[in-house]
Amino acid sequence: MPMFDISERAERIRADLLEFMDTHVYPAEPVYEQQMRESGDPHFHPPIIEELKAEARRRGLWNLFHPHPSSGVGLTNLEYAPLAEVMGRSPHLAPEACNCNAPDTGNMEVLELFGTDEHKAKYLAPLLDGTMRSAFAMTEPAVASSDATNIEMSMVREGEGADAVYVLNGRKWFASNALHKNCKVMIVMGKTDPSAQVHRQQSMMVVPIDAPGVTVLRGLPVYGYQDREGHAEIDFADVRVPAEDVLKGEGEGFAISQARLGPGRIHHCMRMVGMAERALDLLCERALHRVTFGKPIAENANIQDWIAEARIEIEMVRLLTLKAAHMMDTVGNKAARTEIAAIKVAAPQMALKVLDRAVQVHGAGGVTDDFPLARTWAGVRTLRLADGPDEVHKRAIARQELRRHREPRA
Amino acid sequence: MPMFDISERAERIRADLLEFMDTHVYPAEPVYEQQMRESGDPHFHPPIIEELKAEARRRGLWNLFHPHPSSGVGLTNLEYAPLAEVMGRSPHLAPEACNCNAPDTGNMEVLELFGTDEHKAKYLAPLLDGTMRSAFAMTEPAVASSDATNIEMSMVREGEGADAVYVLNGRKWFASNALHKNCKVMIVMGKTDPSAQVHRQQSMMVVPIDAPGVTVLRGLPVYGYQDREGHAEIDFADVRVPAEDVLKGEGEGFAISQARLGPGRIHHCMRMVGMAERALDLLCERALHRVTFGKPIAENANIQDWIAEARIEIEMVRLLTLKAAHMMDTVGNKAARTEIAAIKVAAPQMALKVLDRAVQVHGAGGVTDDFPLARTWAGVRTLRLADGPDEVHKRAIARQELRRHREPRA
Amino acid sequence: MPMFDISERAERIRADLLEFMDTHVYPAEPVYEQQMRESGDPHFHPPIIEELKAEARRRGLWNLFHPHPSSGVGLTNLEYAPLAEVMGRSPHLAPEACNCNAPDTGNMEVLELFGTDEHKAKYLAPLLDGTMRSAFAMTEPAVASSDATNIEMSMVREGEGADAVYVLNGRKWFASNALHKNCKVMIVMGKTDPSAQVHRQQSMMVVPIDAPGVTVLRGLPVYGYQDREGHAEIDFADVRVPAEDVLKGEGEGFAISQARLGPGRIHHCMRMVGMAERALDLLCERALHRVTFGKPIAENANIQDWIAEARIEIEMVRLLTLKAAHMMDTVGNKAARTEIAAIKVAAPQMALKVLDRAVQVHGAGGVTDDFPLARTWAGVRTLRLADGPDEVHKRAIARQELRRHREPRA
Amino acid sequence: MPMFDISERAERIRADLLEFMDTHVYPAEPVYEQQMRESGDPHFHPPIIEELKAEARRRGLWNLFHPHPSSGVGLTNLEYAPLAEVMGRSPHLAPEACNCNAPDTGNMEVLELFGTDEHKAKYLAPLLDGTMRSAFAMTEPAVASSDATNIEMSMVREGEGADAVYVLNGRKWFASNALHKNCKVMIVMGKTDPSAQVHRQQSMMVVPIDAPGVTVLRGLPVYGYQDREGHAEIDFADVRVPAEDVLKGEGEGFAISQARLGPGRIHHCMRMVGMAERALDLLCERALHRVTFGKPIAENANIQDWIAEARIEIEMVRLLTLKAAHMMDTVGNKAARTEIAAIKVAAPQMALKVLDRAVQVHGAGGVTDDFPLARTWAGVRTLRLADGPDEVHKRAIARQELRRHREPRA
Repeated sequence: MPMFDISERAERIRADLLEFMDTHVYPAEPVYEQQMRESGDPHFHPPIIEELKAEARRRGLWNLFHPHPSSGVGLTNLEYAPLAEVMGRSPHLAPEACNCNAPDTGNMEVLELFGTDEHKAKYLAPLLDGTMRSAFAMTEPAVASSDATNIEMSMVREGEGADAVYVLNGRKWFASNALHKNCKVMIVMGKTDPSAQVHRQQSMMVVPIDAPGVTVLRGLPVYGYQDREGHAEIDFADVRVPAEDVLKGEGEGFAISQARLGPGRIHHCMRMVGMAERALDLLCERALHRVTFGKPIAENANIQDWIAEARIEIEMVRLLTLKAAHMMDTVGNKAARTEIAAIKVAAPQMALKVLDRAVQVHGAGGVTDDFPLARTWAGVRTLRLADGPDEVHKRAIARQELRRHREPRA
Repeated sequence: MPMFDISERAERIRADLLEFMDTHVYPAEPVYEQQMRESGDPHFHPPIIEELKAEARRRGLWNLFHPHPSSGVGLTNLEYAPLAEVMGRSPHLAPEACNCNAPDTGNMEVLELFGTDEHKAKYLAPLLDGTMRSAFAMTEPAVASSDATNIEMSMVREGEGADAVYVLNGRKWFASNALHKNCKVMIVMGKTDPSAQVHRQQSMMVVPIDAPGVTVLRGLPVYGYQDREGHAEIDFADVRVPAEDVLKGEGEGFAISQARLGPGRIHHCMRMVGMAERALDLLCERALHRVTFGKPIAENANIQDWIAEARIEIEMVRLLTLKAAHMMDTVGNKAARTEIAAIKVAAPQMALKVLDRAVQVHGAGGVTDDFPLARTWAGVRTLRLADGPDEVHKRAIARQELRRHREPRA
Repeated sequence: MPMFDISERAERIRADLLEFMDTHVYPAEPVYEQQMRESGDPHFHPPIIEELKAEARRRGLWNLFHPHPSSGVGLTNLEYAPLAEVMGRSPHLAPEACNCNAPDTGNMEVLELFGTDEHKAKYLAPLLDGTMRSAFAMTEPAVASSDATNIEMSMVREGEGADAVYVLNGRKWFASNALHKNCKVMIVMGKTDPSAQVHRQQSMMVVPIDAPGVTVLRGLPVYGYQDREGHAEIDFADVRVPAEDVLKGEGEGFAISQARLGPGRIHHCMRMVGMAERALDLLCERALHRVTFGKPIAENANIQDWIAEARIEIEMVRLLTLKAAHMMDTVGNKAARTEIAAIKVAAPQMALKVLDRAVQVHGAGGVTDDFPLARTWAGVRTLRLADGPDEVHKRAIARQELRRHREPRA
Repeated sequence: MPMFDISERAERIRADLLEFMDTHVYPAEPVYEQQMRESGDPHFHPPIIEELKAEARRRGLWNLFHPHPSSGVGLTNLEYAPLAEVMGRSPHLAPEACNCNAPDTGNMEVLELFGTDEHKAKYLAPLLDGTMRSAFAMTEPAVASSDATNIEMSMVREGEGADAVYVLNGRKWFASNALHKNCKVMIVMGKTDPSAQVHRQQSMMVVPIDAPGVTVLRGLPVYGYQDREGHAEIDFADVRVPAEDVLKGEGEGFAISQARLGPGRIHHCMRMVGMAERALDLLCERALHRVTFGKPIAENANIQDWIAEARIEIEMVRLLTLKAAHMMDTVGNKAARTEIAAIKVAAPQMALKVLDRAVQVHGAGGVTDDFPLARTWAGVRTLRLADGPDEVHKRAIARQELRRHREPRA
């Protein structure tokens, strides 16, 4: 990617990370599969993960995502993006090995910025240390949560001063990570003031997962898969949260969620670029070795078209994501909102197409778990919905575009 | 479908079937889900299935698929096709309830046509009776099985006369139904004579699933789902099959497989039409009741486009499948080969598109098992590969088309 | 198409028409091209057309479209549809040769049903005789005419009784046929009562093209093509139309336009099926004879995919159109409205795709007029807009579909 | 585009160019249309072009494309690319106004690098001066010219030393610019040695358009359009070309064509980005002002989806093209070959999609010449074929990709 001025240190870390992938992560994949299979528990925490974490940390490949030099290398979004792509090539191992997995990354950022000293000691420190995991609870089953004003969880304030608490009632689902064996805490979004101005109604709070009244009901399957970290449905019945656990202040929930989304989308999209690259590798290798009607299927022009289209589309999405990252670094989240929405739409569609074609080239094997294609497809398909469906993001882009045409030209 | 001359009896059966769906099948769906969930066994055979079977039989909705009047109503393909569509609306219950599920249907046809008296007594009778299930073992993990000449399972003849046996060695996978609790027998395709002419090398044999040397290794997941009937990987090590269990004769395997494919594809494609109709129903209902930005999403023009495109595409695939069925009835499988290949390509793509858009409209819920969309999608995705990937069928259609242009015009 | 009960007479006419195409129409194509080129006038009426008309009439292939036995054979829509397909294979010659070209066909139907005796003598008779041509003026440049309530042409009544006239003011465009050398009359849609109920505001009138105040301003090009029959922009300035030239009665315009649309869409869609078949023929022939990298491009799997997809999609659109025709014959326009809207959306998109791929296979030649592909593409592209853009028809289908789900199930 | 280090001078020129567009080019568009229409000659050279050229030159916006500082500003490909985009917004005026139009640009580069002193004096000087135009003759009607080995024009050497000539026989078409009123010279590709190694058979020669034996047969229409500069079919009958007019040397034709293609593709692709931006502007403006069913169509979610998809796709193609430009500048044409092939595939498809949707939003007007959409679409459609059809470029990309997987990993 010579056109981007990637810093020397970022290049060096990328080289280290690539070596770590080759020497440790890829070889760990079959071990991981076996440990998971043998456990019989889809939410098992296999020892190989801890081994990889130790090794990554030893190599300085730890908390790379973290923008604050205090807690990590302090890379820019543009510097970190290519690293997220590399980790995306082994999505079940590499991000957690490097302590760079969602939603812990976003939670760590939020706690760094808005957490109290107690939050930092109790949660942020072990999260940065990789010994604790955390969940994020925003989406609700009963309403279209992409329209934040729909959120129904009630957070009612009771009492005053030091004794003030919020009483939480409601139902969340797709709280990712909540079934991870090490998950201890959630950041929860709800409504503190339904009568306030639309974007001041919501607040975010820090809630221990074992708080009285919290019940993890079940892990939601994604196309038949129970992801290891889990997507939980959680009931909140009169959960009492001390007022000091409100992040940033009452009514700041929407603002915090806007702030955390930008980097998170960059990470997700670059990981999807990595997944697509891996799928294209698998597609090419299979196509070169599978023979029908007397020749490798790689010699068929339709398969060659797929390969070329994959190469073109991967490249375009990567560049758009890097541009969005660079804009976030230089002109900020707000100025980059069209680009951030654009990658949220473009990356999953590209990755799904490449993955689906790779499945097709793998024949019946492609739909099984003998290859990582079907499982990765299922995960990416979810990302066309998570954090807002495509349609909501396209609507936002179009409104931005139309606005330009409503204003008189200078 | 007034343009097709559907017989009065077929119309009457369809009305009976629709009533059975309304009064028994749809109400049984949540019961089925609960029985399966409670069993903890993906291959559990839930009691509700036997109840539905009894009721269907009582109503004369039994073995409707069967073309031979001796064993059923003796409907034509055109008559049966709309019934397969109706059953497809509840794909995990209705086909088995009516004893019309694949691959038992194809196996029953093959045994009717080519089985010995012993095969008929031992296997066909209980299959028609619904007390036994059967599998079909053709696809192999090591080769692209869409090119039948690739098949590697060896079937070596030993001995002479009454003592002659074939010794089977090889590996099959995607042997559907093999994990059904009632599965007792397989029809297995392999190579008896690698030196024969290309389409005379293969033979089909009847093999008990508990024959010495047969090992069911595992059930293959499909996008994370372990289907109840199972897609098994099966090892054959020196399995000895008596020569009288060769169907039709040595070298007839390819011919039998051609014969069974036609009706099977009609059934599959019409069931997919039914699945797509069900998905469109769910899409519309969700769109009418889910509100974002102040109005039901059904009022958004993009969602309306999806609905209209689904209606158009479902209608077209249904008509094409009915045409193929009618051609099979009137001019035969060979004359209908382009149409049969065409529906094999068109139906899954149409159904996948409708299902995927229904998932999108359901938001995060769409990817879970709270709705039947994700699971159905996974099953249909497999049908772009089962019995030959799209690309092989398109190749066949194109060659047929080009042939017309190679010949001088009359 | 064995599944449709096409009558023996329709089959016989189709055989005659195919012979006429082979012996006269296809051989006339280069003659036509030359006569048009030599004339230097895009609206020239070349002698070959009159020769073909005489021959078609001699063979009884005349006014086949006409549903009224008095004026033609009296074929049903289902009987006529396959004939329209055949004519569509040579769209600039065959329809006019057989006096079956739009919009004359629709105009003849309207005059038959709603014309006065004078209209019939003065216009209908020579139209049926092929000696006169007519235009239809509905679309306006200033408004989105797909929403009929937008129509702005004013038709103001003056005077009473026998002297009553309507004074027309406004601008029409895409009045097809108006530049045909033999065009003498138009049917014009406008607003007689802007205060009436929405679908009672419009009226249709018979207006001679040389009426005082009528000015044909220009022929509109379609992607650079000036079609021979012309798409005219016409100014109406105080054009005085006697009240007896109002068709059916004041306020009946919308109702008449609904009635004429059904058959017209069947004709258009079947002609597009014919155009697509012709394009596929050309594609296959070119692909068999063009060599790159050492082999005919027909041997490339991507080109084979295109051929197969064309075959599948043509077949599906043909069946859907035949179904719509059959429904119009048996249950009427209103019950068939979803099907009629569906083919209006499906047929042009299918034909455009086949044509565009045929262009691609023809290389640079494909975009020129050395092959009929580019010109036909341009004409078909217009049909995604004429008589309502796709989006309006999809909206109508979706609303129909959603209505089913709003009503409680029986 | 903050992520690319665009030089200050390039930014300054871009600002100047934008101002020139606003103050001179856009206002000249209706004048141009009128002068062309009034001339009645599609190949007319309208006075407004010369006025714009004078103004552009006065402003220093002249020969910006030229990489050699001797003849221009000496911009890099990355610097020039955004300027080509701006010019593409008015594709019939701006490139010629700035003396940056194809194929003159490529011809000027070739003459600069490989021309004799006489070529430079006689042709290059007036080309750089804008007083002469030139054509490029490579494509042949009889063969698929995308496979350069197919080229059939014979160039037979006669005589020796100073008297040596090549005798040219053959037929070329799509020789763009050959019908420009100022066109005086062609660069012609043909075969000098059919027995040589595949890529050494071809040579390029400088041939005056009025050389004896050269006959310009006709201008080829593109979807009905006769482009002003013309796409000529040209016959060569015993055309005698002095040996010193062979560029670079016998057998160097293929090498020269490879060298000229890179920058030409960047230019074409960036102009298409500009065309797409213009189309999106028109789409948005129309959508805001056109009303159906009671609201501007810009409020419909399907139109908003189109706008968002256009924004996303334009952005991605722009970035990919800039990357290709930057790679050409930094690592050279050969290392950039995948990227150069990729933009050749991606840019036209993106632009066609945006243009087609803009046509749809414009209703019937969209297919006429009242808006620049249809004509621009036709031009862009040609670019999916010119200089190799998509399929050839995709084949090249896929082969490159597969090569990586054939080699053992380091």
